[in-house]
Amino acid sequence: MSERKKVILSEAEMPTHWYNINADLPAAGVELPPPLHPGTGQPIGPNDLAPLFPMSLILQEVSAERYIEIPQPVQEVYRMWRPTPLVRAHEWERALETPARIYYKYEGVSPSGSHKPNTAVAQAYYNKEEGVTRLATETGAGQWGSALSFACQVFGLECKVYMVRVSYEQKPYRKVMMQTWGAEVVPSPSPDTNAGRQILAESPDSTGSLGIAISEAVEDAATRDDTKYSLGSVLNHVLLHQTVIGQEVIAGLEAFAEDWPDVLIGCTGGGSNFAGFAFPFLKENISGGRSARIVAVEPAAAPSLTRGVYTYDFGDTAQMTPLIKMHTLGHDFVPAPIHAGGLRYHGMSAQVSALQASGLIEAVSVQQRAIFEAALSFASAEGILPAPEPAHAIWGAMQEALACRESGESKVIVFNMCGHGHFDLAAYEQHLADNLEDFDYPEEAIRASLQKVPSV
Amino acid sequence: MSERKKVILSEAEMPTHWYNINADLPAAGVELPPPLHPGTGQPIGPNDLAPLFPMSLILQEVSAERYIEIPQPVQEVYRMWRPTPLVRAHEWERALETPARIYYKYEGVSPSGSHKPNTAVAQAYYNKEEGVTRLATETGAGQWGSALSFACQVFGLECKVYMVRVSYEQKPYRKVMMQTWGAEVVPSPSPDTNAGRQILAESPDSTGSLGIAISEAVEDAATRDDTKYSLGSVLNHVLLHQTVIGQEVIAGLEAFAEDWPDVLIGCTGGGSNFAGFAFPFLKENISGGRSARIVAVEPAAAPSLTRGVYTYDFGDTAQMTPLIKMHTLGHDFVPAPIHAGGLRYHGMSAQVSALQASGLIEAVSVQQRAIFEAALSFASAEGILPAPEPAHAIWGAMQEALACRESGESKVIVFNMCGHGHFDLAAYEQHLADNLEDFDYPEEAIRASLQKVPSV
Repeated sequence: MSERKKVILSEAEMPTHWYNINADLPAAGVELPPPLHPGTGQPIGPNDLAPLFPMSLILQEVSAERYIEIPQPVQEVYRMWRPTPLVRAHEWERALETPARIYYKYEGVSPSGSHKPNTAVAQAYYNKEEGVTRLATETGAGQWGSALSFACQVFGLECKVYMVRVSYEQKPYRKVMMQTWGAEVVPSPSPDTNAGRQILAESPDSTGSLGIAISEAVEDAATRDDTKYSLGSVLNHVLLHQTVIGQEVIAGLEAFAEDWPDVLIGCTGGGSNFAGFAFPFLKENISGGRSARIVAVEPAAAPSLTRGVYTYDFGDTAQMTPLIKMHTLGHDFVPAPIHAGGLRYHGMSAQVSALQASGLIEAVSVQQRAIFEAALSFASAEGILPAPEPAHAIWGAMQEALACRESGESKVIVFNMCGHGHFDLAAYEQHLADNLEDFDYPEEAIRASLQKVPSV
Repeated sequence: MSERKKVILSEAEMPTHWYNINADLPAAGVELPPPLHPGTGQPIGPNDLAPLFPMSLILQEVSAERYIEIPQPVQEVYRMWRPTPLVRAHEWERALETPARIYYKYEGVSPSGSHKPNTAVAQAYYNKEEGVTRLATETGAGQWGSALSFACQVFGLECKVYMVRVSYEQKPYRKVMMQTWGAEVVPSPSPDTNAGRQILAESPDSTGSLGIAISEAVEDAATRDDTKYSLGSVLNHVLLHQTVIGQEVIAGLEAFAEDWPDVLIGCTGGGSNFAGFAFPFLKENISGGRSARIVAVEPAAAPSLTRGVYTYDFGDTAQMTPLIKMHTLGHDFVPAPIHAGGLRYHGMSAQVSALQASGLIEAVSVQQRAIFEAALSFASAEGILPAPEPAHAIWGAMQEALACRESGESKVIVFNMCGHGHFDLAAYEQHLADNLEDFDYPEEAIRASLQKVPSV
């Protein structure tokens, strides 16, 4: 019998609790400044968020409990696809001629094809429990909208998705996927909200943006009693729900009889897949038990961690959200149109930002063409076509593996392969035809954008 | 802890042998008439097939051994995605309000998204072992071409795929998937073969057909020393390689503590996913040990088992293949353009045909709109979007489950969910817009087509 290729835990071995890093930040000397009200500049309380979120999620947002139990109905839905595989990349190691041992967690086996349902299911459940019958959200390329559509159908909630118009027209399959799960999907800007109507009046041909779509979904939720808003990344309760990933990785590495990884790598947009993967390991770094380097890889087209500043800023373009202390490029920074749509965000979650500011994690940025090269190298060897977002993590893992080839070290490298690329083949086609562009920003462009950041 | 949702066997529990039903047909009183040479009408021998296939596959084609060992390198590649999940469809049972216990085997977790790599990997391996450096094949919608492209890349073979032109243009993502795995993909008819050039000379705008693409791939293989031909269904060695599916189902049901299924359901086009799923159970039916009903579901647009005749006919339109005794609609019958492209075949594998003729399996046919209704019902409950091909099996399982609701029986129903529908969302979109057509053939159309069947 040759070497083991993958570990899929049994359902009985699934995590029963989410891990909340807020509990351990003080021990690490990491301060987490409170979100501020966009109008008053004062710290916000739970009631300020009540029009948008159910109270159970608001309380998770500010909880200091280390472990929060996963409700049984949520665990049951997780078991439709969880535990997900932890795979040893034997073939890719051979192709890279590296002595490193490379592992990847594969979240693409979920119904919508990424890690997003981990939080979508939890959010739909808590909303249902509090009597909400309808959720509104925005989506760019469609990963988050698909996940929430699925989750809403599971719990019998209505779901309205405002999909950025350019994606609605260019990626019709994601829209159809949402519709098969019963969601109502409209291109944003839409005539269904004041925000949408206003923009359509000014520019009838607007292709939309994530900022506009957020404004529409928030307005929808705020103006209807039966409806709350749902967000797919950035907030602590979202990061929290994703920690089933990292906990499963730890158990999977044990089953592989690996001691502890040397380096962990995830891609970062708003921070949720990175956090869900890395935070259970960070807990060990903080407690001084076992330690690993933790690397966030972000696109050069949205370099909040590597080129932004750590300061209070709005989460959206329209300045409707609370002010959050985070790494930001400025709230009206519009990232270049790279294919990794899930990483095109001007800011970063507060937790990931605070950890980066404290030197507890590392961050690098990479250009689009390099990540597709890495994705092809991985797909050739491992047979799985990655989405452009996890291709950033793949690129990061590849750099570490190639460094091991130079040094002869047999490091253990683990990365989060957070979704498949079945809906991204147009991007692969462009890459194969050498038609993809890299994007860079001169220093003065970033400086100009950062001047819009409010002074608190 | 609530009821178990799924079983994924460990890699150590994977089948080590393929099951060859030829060994058990005599005990069942099932005769399997030999293939005949298309020119002489005499039974063909191994040497007649040598220009197209490596000798190890030719010997598997005629083997009477009950179990054939799976080579270690093939087992290793299988472990990239195998064992696949066996899932208890709790949610769908609840939605259907049935007392039946429904299970499905999910083959969509493979690299190309269906059961096809089970044989593609084996075929690439045996070709490689015999010094072949290049494989040629045809593909319709692209499932088989994707699987063989993947397998060829794993073993370092070149791969040339002749893809039916209408699909090449309408489903570009499948083409890109093959290219990312290094295959050369051309629209068929192509200028690369005599067969293709001849058709292009007569009809430059030909949209192609599976029959034409087969002719091109066979000519390519027959005229090049470095190249063999590879087929994705119909032949015994292909069916054989798929029996890992049924063997895993048996082990999975044991892990669920189920006694034995009452009814097994698979879709049929050429017969390979049905055979791979059902034959390990048929072995028990034949030996008189345990027994289950076995149902093949085919499209009303290609009803070989339900409306064809059991007689010798060609496997291809151009009459180049051996004559096989099988259920056929006539070798130049062109099935209506349903979305289940993988089931659009005029004939049926010899083994499946002989079993049907002997009454050891049942067959039903169903229209396209009904299978999409069933697929939506399944996807809503189970979160997995099925391809149109397994949607036929889903429809069959649904009929059994609804019958149980009427009768109150708690039967065990198992079906093969042989692939996901991530590349079929245009079909779902048409279905949601109520734009799908059903197809039926008047009796005289079938009779006319059958008159072309040669008399042997």
